[in-house]
Amino acid sequence: MFPTEIIALKRDKRELSQEQIDFFIQKYAKEDLPDYQMSALLMAVLLNGMSSKETLALTQSMMNSGVALNWKDLDVPTVDKHSTGGVGDKTSLILGPIVSCFDVAVPMIAGRGLGHSGGTIDKLESIPGFQCELSLEKFKSLVKKNNLSIIAQTKDICPADKKIYALRDVTSTVESIPLICASIMSKKLAEGASSLVLDVKYGNGAFMTTAAKAIDLAKKLKGIGVGAARKVSAFITDMNQPLGQFAGNSIEIQECVDILKNEKIDLYHDCRELSLILAAEMLVLTKAFKTFKVAYSEAEKTLSSGKAYEKFEELVEAQGGNLKQLPQPNQFLEIKSTKKGFLKSYDTRGIGYAGISLQAGRAKATDTINPVAGIQIHKKIGEKIEKGDVLFTMMSSTTAFFDETQKRLNSCYTISAQKVKPNKLIYKKI
Amino acid sequence: MFPTEIIALKRDKRELSQEQIDFFIQKYAKEDLPDYQMSALLMAVLLNGMSSKETLALTQSMMNSGVALNWKDLDVPTVDKHSTGGVGDKTSLILGPIVSCFDVAVPMIAGRGLGHSGGTIDKLESIPGFQCELSLEKFKSLVKKNNLSIIAQTKDICPADKKIYALRDVTSTVESIPLICASIMSKKLAEGASSLVLDVKYGNGAFMTTAAKAIDLAKKLKGIGVGAARKVSAFITDMNQPLGQFAGNSIEIQECVDILKNEKIDLYHDCRELSLILAAEMLVLTKAFKTFKVAYSEAEKTLSSGKAYEKFEELVEAQGGNLKQLPQPNQFLEIKSTKKGFLKSYDTRGIGYAGISLQAGRAKATDTINPVAGIQIHKKIGEKIEKGDVLFTMMSSTTAFFDETQKRLNSCYTISAQKVKPNKLIYKKI
Repeated sequence: MFPTEIIALKRDKRELSQEQIDFFIQKYAKEDLPDYQMSALLMAVLLNGMSSKETLALTQSMMNSGVALNWKDLDVPTVDKHSTGGVGDKTSLILGPIVSCFDVAVPMIAGRGLGHSGGTIDKLESIPGFQCELSLEKFKSLVKKNNLSIIAQTKDICPADKKIYALRDVTSTVESIPLICASIMSKKLAEGASSLVLDVKYGNGAFMTTAAKAIDLAKKLKGIGVGAARKVSAFITDMNQPLGQFAGNSIEIQECVDILKNEKIDLYHDCRELSLILAAEMLVLTKAFKTFKVAYSEAEKTLSSGKAYEKFEELVEAQGGNLKQLPQPNQFLEIKSTKKGFLKSYDTRGIGYAGISLQAGRAKATDTINPVAGIQIHKKIGEKIEKGDVLFTMMSSTTAFFDETQKRLNSCYTISAQKVKPNKLIYKKI
Repeated sequence: MFPTEIIALKRDKRELSQEQIDFFIQKYAKEDLPDYQMSALLMAVLLNGMSSKETLALTQSMMNSGVALNWKDLDVPTVDKHSTGGVGDKTSLILGPIVSCFDVAVPMIAGRGLGHSGGTIDKLESIPGFQCELSLEKFKSLVKKNNLSIIAQTKDICPADKKIYALRDVTSTVESIPLICASIMSKKLAEGASSLVLDVKYGNGAFMTTAAKAIDLAKKLKGIGVGAARKVSAFITDMNQPLGQFAGNSIEIQECVDILKNEKIDLYHDCRELSLILAAEMLVLTKAFKTFKVAYSEAEKTLSSGKAYEKFEELVEAQGGNLKQLPQPNQFLEIKSTKKGFLKSYDTRGIGYAGISLQAGRAKATDTINPVAGIQIHKKIGEKIEKGDVLFTMMSSTTAFFDETQKRLNSCYTISAQKVKPNKLIYKKI
């Protein structure tokens, strides 16, 4: 078997066998196959596609390039949630504490911000002392002890994915559904949870801009999970506006604390609601409860009783964080509406990039984040707007980037004279 | 302009501008763009194609990556011939001496063997002392003095092509018409001849297996030449059997000497005829004669009078070769027909590979060639065959590879009970 033969097969729209995919991926992971052969294959995959069988084989091969965890020695079932990313998406930090209050373990290996979309690890690291870079041994022991730990990707997990991901970025081969599926699912399978709830977002703040594309991706991701003997549910959810009220890092942690402490929950209704729905589905998949209705009701009780907040405090403490020292922004600038009417739409991706211009995210991988920087989004689509109403508040430890960010935010919303009907939060369950 | 943007455009089936192509190629030639980005672009070009405008821009950019010769200081017009390659194709060594007997200069930069197909440089290097690796200065002075010189590709000519060609070989991106066209024509344009005759071969011994594919390639090659202000003619010629009687190196030189000395010319009828046709067209393009008929007749006179042979001797001497010491094989093994009938077909590519198994060509670039090794092909398609007739003679300085080669050659022909009508040598002129 030669690498060129495998490239030629995919170039000629043929289906690769599991052996062929494994040969190519393992050689690449071992630095025994050059980047230029991998990039030729990646472009051929992007243009000629991969069958579901090939995508599963690719996912498993990428998973097997590193350590694959298992949780056989736990007495409780395991479940995780994966979101395809959006603006203001902080549900992991609410549903993790809720679900792990039951006899269910939640081992989460999370990511950093990517493009306009925020990342759970960046948010947690805004808590002084919080350690996300734990060894897999420490991760295992925390999950065993508390049912919950959230760590960053380590170099032991899916090294092939790490190399391929970096190469895709510089060869314009990011936008390939099989490659996206394999990248997401190899890491989730390596994490070893036996159930997985997928939050596949669609809209102008999501990587999939239409519901149809999100449904296609969700079906493929689910297919891989089921092919690898996992229980998987997927929700198609709306990302045509930020989730909750804050987009940033420490300010999103504060929003989670508010939700977990049942403070100002009306403001954060969509974020709280989506967290409860995803948590309930996680509880159903792990058979903690038989029906979604009961699971939702139990999840809600756990949240409103403050038990989930205690679990969140336990998580932060176990990983060395100090919530009391959570940094707060001290510079603010409001953007007010110059029109009256109804909030018609957001450019949600634009709001994400406005956050980056405030240094709440990274324009390139080596940038550092200002943990307190971010944007408050005061209104939801469909709300009535009066002239002079505050739409956004920029917040940071410096006013340095407010001018540029303000310019960006000024073109991130539209107001209509007519009433506007907002999208449903949950478009579909798959 | 970023390399990834250019890759993304071609990935999305967009037409690249001359500036974009030039940016990419010049950066690559200067080692300022990594192989993995070039290979992603090459695969995108292979799968999504290139317009004739893009292919011309690519060709010119590759040409401009190195030295482009010009012959403005010559008093005579310049012309070259390019063949797309086959088995036993030695016409350059006959038509070069013919055409340069007139007031026409023939500056030839030729190639080595490629896959099953032989190369002019390997053949010339079987003449003891013959130097193909001359400086461009020396090449220019020889063309000025003798109207003829044949040298190997130098590192100054089309360095981008050299790098891209090597990369295509290891990324399964060889079989792309725009990339093939740009590779051929960039070198021919850099050579600076103002006219060019193309011999585009089709059949089971050619890179283009069907006449339709050869016609398509010929039209595209001609389009590039015309786009770069050259006079170009193309012939589609038959490569369903070896040309002439010998396939090897010194044995092909001997065949050329025989043709040039008008010895055994009936045996080599097809090779002599094709050389005359191509030479005549070269003379027409350079306006040495007004009509093809007159040009052909003058070319034939030059050949049969022995003048072309004198020119060939002058070429060999000028480049340091000693024809009298041309090495000869001393080991022979005949393969005889076990059937009677009519020669129906050859597996011409198989005969080329049989030559490689005798070390008359290279299986990989670093292999060395045995200059006397090769195969005599005694019969032409359509000939009557008696049981016991010799079909092939293997020849070399050793019997070491005769067994393997015999096995190969045994499956390289078919004999039919019915009469067989051979293909015409010239399928079409374009």
